[in-house]
Amino acid sequence: MADTTKAKLVYLDYAAATPVDDEVFAVMLPYFKDNFYNPSALYLKSKSVRTNVEAARKAVSRIIGAKPTEIIFTSGATEANNLAITGIFNDHPGSEGLYSSTEHEAVTKPMLEKQVKSTSISVDKSGKVDLIDLRNKISFKTVLISVIYANNETGTINDLAKIKEIIISELDDRKAKKNILPLYLHTDASQAANYLTLDVNRLGVDLMTLNGAKTYGPKQSACLYVNRNVKLKSFISGGSQEFGLRAGTENVPNIIGFAKSLELASNLRSKESSRLKELQHDLEEELLKLNKNIVINSKSKKRLPNITNFSILGQDGERLVMELDERGIMAATGSACSANKDTVSPVLKAIGLSDREINSAIRISTGKYTSKDDIEYLVQVLSDILI
Amino acid sequence: MADTTKAKLVYLDYAAATPVDDEVFAVMLPYFKDNFYNPSALYLKSKSVRTNVEAARKAVSRIIGAKPTEIIFTSGATEANNLAITGIFNDHPGSEGLYSSTEHEAVTKPMLEKQVKSTSISVDKSGKVDLIDLRNKISFKTVLISVIYANNETGTINDLAKIKEIIISELDDRKAKKNILPLYLHTDASQAANYLTLDVNRLGVDLMTLNGAKTYGPKQSACLYVNRNVKLKSFISGGSQEFGLRAGTENVPNIIGFAKSLELASNLRSKESSRLKELQHDLEEELLKLNKNIVINSKSKKRLPNITNFSILGQDGERLVMELDERGIMAATGSACSANKDTVSPVLKAIGLSDREINSAIRISTGKYTSKDDIEYLVQVLSDILI
Repeated sequence: MADTTKAKLVYLDYAAATPVDDEVFAVMLPYFKDNFYNPSALYLKSKSVRTNVEAARKAVSRIIGAKPTEIIFTSGATEANNLAITGIFNDHPGSEGLYSSTEHEAVTKPMLEKQVKSTSISVDKSGKVDLIDLRNKISFKTVLISVIYANNETGTINDLAKIKEIIISELDDRKAKKNILPLYLHTDASQAANYLTLDVNRLGVDLMTLNGAKTYGPKQSACLYVNRNVKLKSFISGGSQEFGLRAGTENVPNIIGFAKSLELASNLRSKESSRLKELQHDLEEELLKLNKNIVINSKSKKRLPNITNFSILGQDGERLVMELDERGIMAATGSACSANKDTVSPVLKAIGLSDREINSAIRISTGKYTSKDDIEYLVQVLSDILI
Repeated sequence: MADTTKAKLVYLDYAAATPVDDEVFAVMLPYFKDNFYNPSALYLKSKSVRTNVEAARKAVSRIIGAKPTEIIFTSGATEANNLAITGIFNDHPGSEGLYSSTEHEAVTKPMLEKQVKSTSISVDKSGKVDLIDLRNKISFKTVLISVIYANNETGTINDLAKIKEIIISELDDRKAKKNILPLYLHTDASQAANYLTLDVNRLGVDLMTLNGAKTYGPKQSACLYVNRNVKLKSFISGGSQEFGLRAGTENVPNIIGFAKSLELASNLRSKESSRLKELQHDLEEELLKLNKNIVINSKSKKRLPNITNFSILGQDGERLVMELDERGIMAATGSACSANKDTVSPVLKAIGLSDREINSAIRISTGKYTSKDDIEYLVQVLSDILI
């Protein structure tokens, strides 16, 4: 059993941030100083940097089953989500959007800020999109549906292929009615990338956000997959970089690092999924044994292997996180990456938790460097705290 | 005299990109892996990262004579320009904008894309904004004037304080007419930061773009200074990072590196300005001696010390850049960072150059690692090519 007095550090907040992997950093390194050249310049050194940026694009496209021209590198997943939503609505003024009620605010905010109607779709107790509600809420003006692939707070996985089926049937209806408005499916796959397939054809998505900052790549490294049939209007304008959809000299080390991180994630996917699934199972079993006031929020079978969200009824989540921190354990309450700490988690509200449950909620998210020991230590510390 | 046969590499395109300085990289390094934490999380390790991000904000604010809350870190100067322009117009629908005819397209494009009237202001032969034309073009609906601090193609410096005087007089007029519309001055100081004062009070600017990718900081590191009296609407939405004006988990190493690069630039400013001014003088003297078909474009006295734009009449600029490259010299034709190589430079057109002059134009931009030898080598190579 772990000795809780020693100065141990256990990071259990991989859903908020991942360290840059050594292999990722190694491929980024040459681009800060030696190959710092502007990829758009005319000389050979620049052209070689351009070649490497395009190789990274090709690598990303191969992993997700897309074409290189369908990959738009952006500065972070928030920007990619904004580009998807703003880009679609700018090109289809007057149309409407739908989003699940468990979306990240990088989706809900641009949806609600557009001068169009945007409506949220209900989710079930586990956080999965209610497909009947989704079908009912599609109007003849709906142009975009944004549904998170795997939720950042609960880990719940949505069935995107099923949503695509509904979209195809709606498009058939529209065709019959001579309504030519397209209907696109966007997904934020930030949390999913380490553990789930990213094949855009199997998923049936038209737009997909990927986030290097969650796959052991650098911060604000990301991309938006944009199916070649989707018309998007740029919202950061200037030079014609990224096929005219994201102006500004490319962040070359970030792009190179992002592609490498996705490649590593793709190679480790199956192995890491099994390993973390086991840790998750052990953790949840131990938690339920530990204290009768502990409830696991969202016990969906279709869930990421690295997220456990639980409440200790009667306790204050924020205070608990601080107490864990004092013992070297780093964890989160609601959504740590939201940077809005004072608001109640809309995700936990959407899955039907009471304020009492939400206020005592803790999110544990494991990752590449999490060991069985770490989980045992967490359980031990929680047991000490709750005595 | 330099031996043109040896394999020498001479980079003379510092206006397109600068390598990351060793000192800058050293301060960035701990944030990729060791201190990778999300600055918004609740544990101490994250709070320490937050403290360091805020220290970087303070350092930047001190250098430009602003308050920390007036610094918005962005992913690149293009994004900062877009935020300034889109942010102002989104908050003042129906108002109008003015921009100099030598602006970078990261300014002109967002200006022209907004659903408002935007008008360009003429410049003189040297590329300086025509103050009479500027005054005449201000209408009662003008809310924003964007004038580049120092031009990226010619190095010409604009007198921002003089423009501010015109704005103050216009605002007095508006007050008398009970017109409460504000009138803001934005400047893109990307090229200026290594050589000119950045004191926002002396310059009289309300918004200022700074670009770490031109000051030996990392790519897509930048900030927008926003005077506390300016109301801006965010255009990348999500989390409440950067005072709600730029959502997304902060790119911590980039922010830390950006601040350091600006600090170094500020310390080196006076020394580097004198040193490069001398190299510039020597180069231009030698060029004029070399060949009677060489003309220096923009000989304004108020010019950056590191840019020389010249035409070799009868020669093709792009071909010349390739020939220089074959001999190890990296230089630019028009604006290398525009990434739109097939269009004629609007900047050189605006200062009244003929197509013939523009097509044969070359931009030499020196920097921290440029030596007297490098300039001599360039002159020697040009002399060989032009025989």
